[in-house]
Amino acid sequence: MTDVQKTVSALCSAAKTASAVLAAASGDTRRTALLCMRDALCAHSEQILQSNAEDMLHAEQNGVSAPMQDRLRLTQARLLAIADALAALAALPDPIGEGEVFTRPNGLQIRRVRVPLGTVGIIYEARPNVTADAAGLCIKSGNTAVLRGGKEAIRTNCAIVYALRAGLRTAGLPEDCICLIEDTSRDSAAALMQMRQCIDVLIPRGGKGLIRTVVEQASVPVIETGAGNCHLYVDESADIEMAVSLTMNAKTQRPSVCNAIETLLVHASVQEPFFRALRDAIASFHTPVEIRGCARTRAAWEGILCASEEDWACEYDDYILAVRVVDSLEEAVSHINRFGTHHSECIVTRDLNAARAFQLAVDSACVYVNASTRFTDGEEFGFGAEIGISTQKLHARGPMGLTALTTIKYLIDGTGQCRT
Amino acid sequence: MTDVQKTVSALCSAAKTASAVLAAASGDTRRTALLCMRDALCAHSEQILQSNAEDMLHAEQNGVSAPMQDRLRLTQARLLAIADALAALAALPDPIGEGEVFTRPNGLQIRRVRVPLGTVGIIYEARPNVTADAAGLCIKSGNTAVLRGGKEAIRTNCAIVYALRAGLRTAGLPEDCICLIEDTSRDSAAALMQMRQCIDVLIPRGGKGLIRTVVEQASVPVIETGAGNCHLYVDESADIEMAVSLTMNAKTQRPSVCNAIETLLVHASVQEPFFRALRDAIASFHTPVEIRGCARTRAAWEGILCASEEDWACEYDDYILAVRVVDSLEEAVSHINRFGTHHSECIVTRDLNAARAFQLAVDSACVYVNASTRFTDGEEFGFGAEIGISTQKLHARGPMGLTALTTIKYLIDGTGQCRT
Repeated sequence: MTDVQKTVSALCSAAKTASAVLAAASGDTRRTALLCMRDALCAHSEQILQSNAEDMLHAEQNGVSAPMQDRLRLTQARLLAIADALAALAALPDPIGEGEVFTRPNGLQIRRVRVPLGTVGIIYEARPNVTADAAGLCIKSGNTAVLRGGKEAIRTNCAIVYALRAGLRTAGLPEDCICLIEDTSRDSAAALMQMRQCIDVLIPRGGKGLIRTVVEQASVPVIETGAGNCHLYVDESADIEMAVSLTMNAKTQRPSVCNAIETLLVHASVQEPFFRALRDAIASFHTPVEIRGCARTRAAWEGILCASEEDWACEYDDYILAVRVVDSLEEAVSHINRFGTHHSECIVTRDLNAARAFQLAVDSACVYVNASTRFTDGEEFGFGAEIGISTQKLHARGPMGLTALTTIKYLIDGTGQCRT
Repeated sequence: MTDVQKTVSALCSAAKTASAVLAAASGDTRRTALLCMRDALCAHSEQILQSNAEDMLHAEQNGVSAPMQDRLRLTQARLLAIADALAALAALPDPIGEGEVFTRPNGLQIRRVRVPLGTVGIIYEARPNVTADAAGLCIKSGNTAVLRGGKEAIRTNCAIVYALRAGLRTAGLPEDCICLIEDTSRDSAAALMQMRQCIDVLIPRGGKGLIRTVVEQASVPVIETGAGNCHLYVDESADIEMAVSLTMNAKTQRPSVCNAIETLLVHASVQEPFFRALRDAIASFHTPVEIRGCARTRAAWEGILCASEEDWACEYDDYILAVRVVDSLEEAVSHINRFGTHHSECIVTRDLNAARAFQLAVDSACVYVNASTRFTDGEEFGFGAEIGISTQKLHARGPMGLTALTTIKYLIDGTGQCRT
């Protein structure tokens, strides 16, 4: 084992040991702990903002991009929002506890209870808000957390975790319920990905590159989140005005997020009126939106770029929209299932049969009829807290609430029953 | 791509294409298909038994072990049981369908529906009964199946799949809902493990070696089943007679299965009367049971072998039992969590607090109080069909019923809602 592996292993082991204590703590204790963590963040705000100022200075000196600097920056207001989020978590219903109970003919009483996963690893980038957010989600669901954030935010993360651990102590819980890997080298992330003995699940939070690396390299089970190549299909019976409004919302309301659309599929029979109306909407929009079209789109829409095969598979996360004309709903579905990431798709239609056929055939977590894909979100679905949007089919799919951080366990009470 | 990879890829792709048709089929159609598959197995019984006789002849010529020959052998009665199991599956409730429906304040109506995973890969060994069983479970849950059985059973498997596909055609479903990889080389298994584009989940069914290989090598998500290093702990307040009866049942009723115990942990305060009673029970048992003990066990029990560290981690699957004396419940729990496979464990106790402390602290799928671990089984739990016993925490844990072969999907109906 290298020194980095030893350090990571020791931290993971400490978090695993603490998980037994946390799993035995009541929902009230976990609720109190979250409030103590909130108070500690506020009490340590000066140190946290000071550490953040140092991170910001290094970021400027190292020529870190402006958007990344913005994600990195904490203000008094942002820190307060982070602290408030912990209090909001505390107020949510406890995801841990008794479920179904059933008695078998032989008298065995079987209880199915929802229990924490144990210890959760989180690998993320330069957003210090994730530090408190992920730690809070873990504590709420009875899991201990091993956090490995990006190097740009390391001073801020250390200060936040210092405060959170102080909060845990106040609540009478082991401070190792939250552990931060202070080594931000690639080696420390690689080491964390192999800690099968201690880490029950690994959640990458960040860009596509990070998620792909974790999915490919980790031997610890991973919950994959966030890849979003989403589509909107304008059916032949679509309300054109609604189709334009949904397209504009799903593309431009916040293009950098995973539930924004990247490709528009348009039924040939409505392309003329739809393209005309969309062109007008884009022309009057405050920011230029670049269109990349298939041959048929380009024939109908002058001056746009040509979309290649790569465009269909691309998550632009930007004011760019790929457009393809199709001859049928089936062609739209087949395009989506081939090029999409199984996240969120929408059909705009007035035909109920088309709506149901689309919802059945599209193999994605969320399939919308006449609504923006931007609603794929834990808050918007009413789940209270969101851990991420799962694009996998096992364990969790779509917006993940707190139960995604739990598993089940069967407790069986008998009176000496033997199997015959 | 090698020729084997091309063949496997083509089969997986055919199964994936068929999955869209199967997912659109009603529960009634799937039920009918299972009955048609049952009828086809009966109608083709002569060819199947003839193919099995050829497999048996090859097995004898190649010096295949007697237990494996027994697993490979089909008789008219065994084939009838396999066919009957398909009819029993048909009669179970449909795991696919509508779940919760909720309406958000903005009017969005969100339906959470249970849907098939898509296409399931199954890698197994020389048991031809798995061929029909796995295919049946997949069809019942709306999934298409790609089967890759062992080379010893290949003629039998081809004959069974030929019949099952005939049954599917009779029911009006594509025969590619069930595909058999006829190449039984290691390369074909390796190829199947990498088919992320077509296979949604891979389930290995067989011995530890097979399962470990699949878990380590597959890039397709795996549901890990069957590793069972189970424990029974005799607490200080145990009813000695019950402890002996449960030990004998959990160890000897069927030692080759995953829910049999491998290690016995005995509280020091009851070791004397318990060992005396257990020795008598073993002495009067029809088959010798080998005991491997820790130093304290050996001091109290003459003539037994010495247990090494490896014994604590070993799944004997045989009439062998490791025995360790412990000084507390905590020591027992810590042994189990360190050496166990998180499958099934039991405490024998008259103390309710001890019972609850054990159930809370032991990190296993099934934790028993005063009952044999042999009950960890889908049928015994009343789940109808069993796909296996999951020892992982994500997606499914413990005995897996049909829902383990499903996922969820959100269908959202709107009236033009945009996010602001």
